[in-house]
Amino acid sequence: MFLLNGAPGHYVDVADRGFQYGDGLFETIEVLDGRPLFLDRHLRRLALGCQRLLIPMPAAELLAGEAAKLAQQAERGVLKIIVTRGSGGRGYRQPEPIQPTRLLSLHPYPDYPETFQTDGIRARFCWQRLSVNTTLAGIKHLNRLEQIMARAEWRDDDIQEGLMLDSEDRVVEGVMSNLFAVKAGQLYTPSLAGCGVAGIIRELIVDFARNIGVPLYEIPLDQVEVLAADELFVTNSVIGIWPIKRLEQRVFAVGPVTRRMQGLLNQARVAEAQACSAA
Amino acid sequence: MFLLNGAPGHYVDVADRGFQYGDGLFETIEVLDGRPLFLDRHLRRLALGCQRLLIPMPAAELLAGEAAKLAQQAERGVLKIIVTRGSGGRGYRQPEPIQPTRLLSLHPYPDYPETFQTDGIRARFCWQRLSVNTTLAGIKHLNRLEQIMARAEWRDDDIQEGLMLDSEDRVVEGVMSNLFAVKAGQLYTPSLAGCGVAGIIRELIVDFARNIGVPLYEIPLDQVEVLAADELFVTNSVIGIWPIKRLEQRVFAVGPVTRRMQGLLNQARVAEAQACSAA
Repeated sequence: MFLLNGAPGHYVDVADRGFQYGDGLFETIEVLDGRPLFLDRHLRRLALGCQRLLIPMPAAELLAGEAAKLAQQAERGVLKIIVTRGSGGRGYRQPEPIQPTRLLSLHPYPDYPETFQTDGIRARFCWQRLSVNTTLAGIKHLNRLEQIMARAEWRDDDIQEGLMLDSEDRVVEGVMSNLFAVKAGQLYTPSLAGCGVAGIIRELIVDFARNIGVPLYEIPLDQVEVLAADELFVTNSVIGIWPIKRLEQRVFAVGPVTRRMQGLLNQARVAEAQACSAA
Repeated sequence: MFLLNGAPGHYVDVADRGFQYGDGLFETIEVLDGRPLFLDRHLRRLALGCQRLLIPMPAAELLAGEAAKLAQQAERGVLKIIVTRGSGGRGYRQPEPIQPTRLLSLHPYPDYPETFQTDGIRARFCWQRLSVNTTLAGIKHLNRLEQIMARAEWRDDDIQEGLMLDSEDRVVEGVMSNLFAVKAGQLYTPSLAGCGVAGIIRELIVDFARNIGVPLYEIPLDQVEVLAADELFVTNSVIGIWPIKRLEQRVFAVGPVTRRMQGLLNQARVAEAQACSAA
């Protein structure tokens, strides 16, 4: 199901700058019990991205209304929102005024085995690097060739995620996820000042850690440090929290901090679905 | 006029990875006397880009036939070719098999004043940096947010081009063009090993310089060196060669090497249009 600028439709003008230049942003949102989870946080990140790219944000109430309309059609699914700078302009120069394109689409929830949550996944390091650009760091923009090239490095279905490094060999995130490491009871996650996507689940975990008094540090991590962690897990809005049970040749146990964060996230998801329901 | 996968049409499925992720490539080609100029070189660069991004290249004969069909409708114009990875796949993971989307479109030639060629243009340095990524360097891919953010830095119509630096403060290229500097009769152009687009006119100028025995060096250039040049010019397939008459506060004369290159390019363009005609 697709809503293109508020109407059913899934064909976009080829002149749209999303197609011409990747000139836009997106959000990927879990739908549970017919409701888009953590929508406020997603719309806040989208607003930050629009501000950064100088795209006028479609009204949050409008997007929320359309999101609710689509989400209610699924018990569980994935809602995607794309906002582009629309058509027009002269080459790279943006049009004046900008009339953004918005696309909302509802997709089936992927058929990930339950064991990815319970037992963990296998991961590898990617060769493809994330390039550093402070303008684009943190936001979920449509220029995703680095992730595509990284994901094309393996076809082994036993490996679920690849960890990406920046040009200075610091580990930044997974191809489709953020990364957390646990060492001696403390949480570490790479800084996203230069590249990477500041995920909504990442943001929640930072909040959880603060609430329960687990120290969390956003610092650069290298491959050796990641491999020396006690626990590793990756996060995004669709997968939630997946423990890493094996990274390259190193095997990890699913540890207590990972389990605690999974519990807190599941509570928050259920509360969120119910809160939406009451609204 | 648009040809989408061989048929008239200018609406693309929103599931196309060009729209979803900027997952593709493009070429911008001058049309003169109803013919696409330097088409062989454009298709060669497109093939290199497809190879780099692991996209199966549509047959060159097919693209050439469609390009000729569109181009014959204009005395002068701009032909754009976009090739994307098509639809499908799971998130960043590419579909198997890949069925690329190809879009050819014909546009009016921009109404640039003749003085941009004869007297030169004004240029500035951009704040937005080009990020370094050797996988993506040189090819004309659809991830163009850096250029869009750079072009958004000025609205003064007296300034026609912005020069972009990489994250190590080396001057790389213009927002929409390649850059050449002349110093003591020798030509210099920035290396594109880490970022930038390897332009077709840039490639021609490298050939011209070799043919007429003007030394040309592809080396890193910093802002001070660029400002200290005797002559500066920018190139692309639509503008040809524009001398820079002013960069920031520094004023340049249009010098003999620039003029000579303009003459050689014009000869090559005319020869190319006639050669196409004979074919």
